[in-house]
Amino acid sequence: MRNIRLKVAYEGTRYQGWQKQEAYDNTIQGKLEKLISRMCDEEITVQGSGRTDAGVHALGQIVNFHTSCEMSLQEMQQYMNQYLPEDIAITEISEVAERFHSRLNATGKKYCYRIWNSSIPNVFWRRYTHTVEEALNMEAMKQAAAHFLGEHDFKAFTSTKKGKKSTVRRIDSIEIVKVDDLITFTFQGNGFLYHMIRILVGTLLEVGRGERKADTMPDILDSKTRENAGALVPGKGLMLEEVYYS
Amino acid sequence: MRNIRLKVAYEGTRYQGWQKQEAYDNTIQGKLEKLISRMCDEEITVQGSGRTDAGVHALGQIVNFHTSCEMSLQEMQQYMNQYLPEDIAITEISEVAERFHSRLNATGKKYCYRIWNSSIPNVFWRRYTHTVEEALNMEAMKQAAAHFLGEHDFKAFTSTKKGKKSTVRRIDSIEIVKVDDLITFTFQGNGFLYHMIRILVGTLLEVGRGERKADTMPDILDSKTRENAGALVPGKGLMLEEVYYS
Repeated sequence: MRNIRLKVAYEGTRYQGWQKQEAYDNTIQGKLEKLISRMCDEEITVQGSGRTDAGVHALGQIVNFHTSCEMSLQEMQQYMNQYLPEDIAITEISEVAERFHSRLNATGKKYCYRIWNSSIPNVFWRRYTHTVEEALNMEAMKQAAAHFLGEHDFKAFTSTKKGKKSTVRRIDSIEIVKVDDLITFTFQGNGFLYHMIRILVGTLLEVGRGERKADTMPDILDSKTRENAGALVPGKGLMLEEVYYS
Repeated sequence: MRNIRLKVAYEGTRYQGWQKQEAYDNTIQGKLEKLISRMCDEEITVQGSGRTDAGVHALGQIVNFHTSCEMSLQEMQQYMNQYLPEDIAITEISEVAERFHSRLNATGKKYCYRIWNSSIPNVFWRRYTHTVEEALNMEAMKQAAAHFLGEHDFKAFTSTKKGKKSTVRRIDSIEIVKVDDLITFTFQGNGFLYHMIRILVGTLLEVGRGERKADTMPDILDSKTRENAGALVPGKGLMLEEVYYS
């Protein structure tokens, strides 16, 4: 069996997220599986590097699927880009070792969360940013973010219900950059829990507004209690930028 | 009477262009007049610096209207940004001399036309670019563009039917810049005829593809015949960037 690896870009606005759902299949995975199954004339399951929630975008989601289809890679990419909806595109395609698994082999990810920080709307960024009208203290947000670097139990920063899976993750870098009225939070780490980045950003915004102190972040981590962290910010500000493999 | 000047940004995708139409009023001017008339509780006519066609976007359209409404500028801007559709925004507001006229007083304009130059679709740029898959000769396009600088009769580069109005315009600069797969054509001049930039870009693309020679541009100008120029490219690649006043 061939193992095909894809890099996929999508605007998440119209979708119920990455993961296929039986009830209401308006998902990226669902769209891809339906099209690739038709292209290969066999039932195909596509494996993503991770789920993205409703409204979340991707510049570089990595996907793989197994097939006995004999089309060339270029033919496959052209076919997919011709028939996929215009908000999903296959930006790279390659053939990889049969045991490559886009989720299990991923060693890290980069996500950006974007804030439009103005009371004047931006019509061009509106689908890719969450708007915060109030002034934000950039220094305080950077100081708070530094407390999340390294390996921590991020149980307070996920919406996952109690389970046995580890909630320990390692964050390698958090950059917070403001250019004009656009603030970009860039996170790199070995993996992120369900809603983790959106709750981290929500908490950092509360620091930026002066509602929390930067040095209270370790207490939130230690408490391992979701209620102690900040609000979940909307999905549309989040973009899966890149997935890393060793 | 107060004379209010607005800077307006819009994504043109959903609209039938700037100019109000009686039959089918899904226009930017129509949306603004309806809302501002309600805000000011009197019939308002808004004057734009120029029309933009269906699908064309604006970062800095300039508009003015006269009113006896006594709201503060800040209140007006907030009201408009609250009730306008999310693809139209008032980015600046000021009160100007009663005789200021956004169209008649404009001394120049800057437009960008953007090409996505790849066979791989870009989901994020798709509403703001026209896709050209073939390789384009950048040098040849720049050489061709140089022939349009200065004052010329651009009758061959407009869709306007025969009329008595002058078709002489002055182009001060044309920049053609490629960054990765995005090519941006930036035009500055004292004014542009109906469809002029879209026909200029269509003609330059034919030079870029090798279908025309760069040094044939003066002959097209001299012919004053629309059929001798290139194809009209789609509206969605065009953005009114800035309007200049002395």
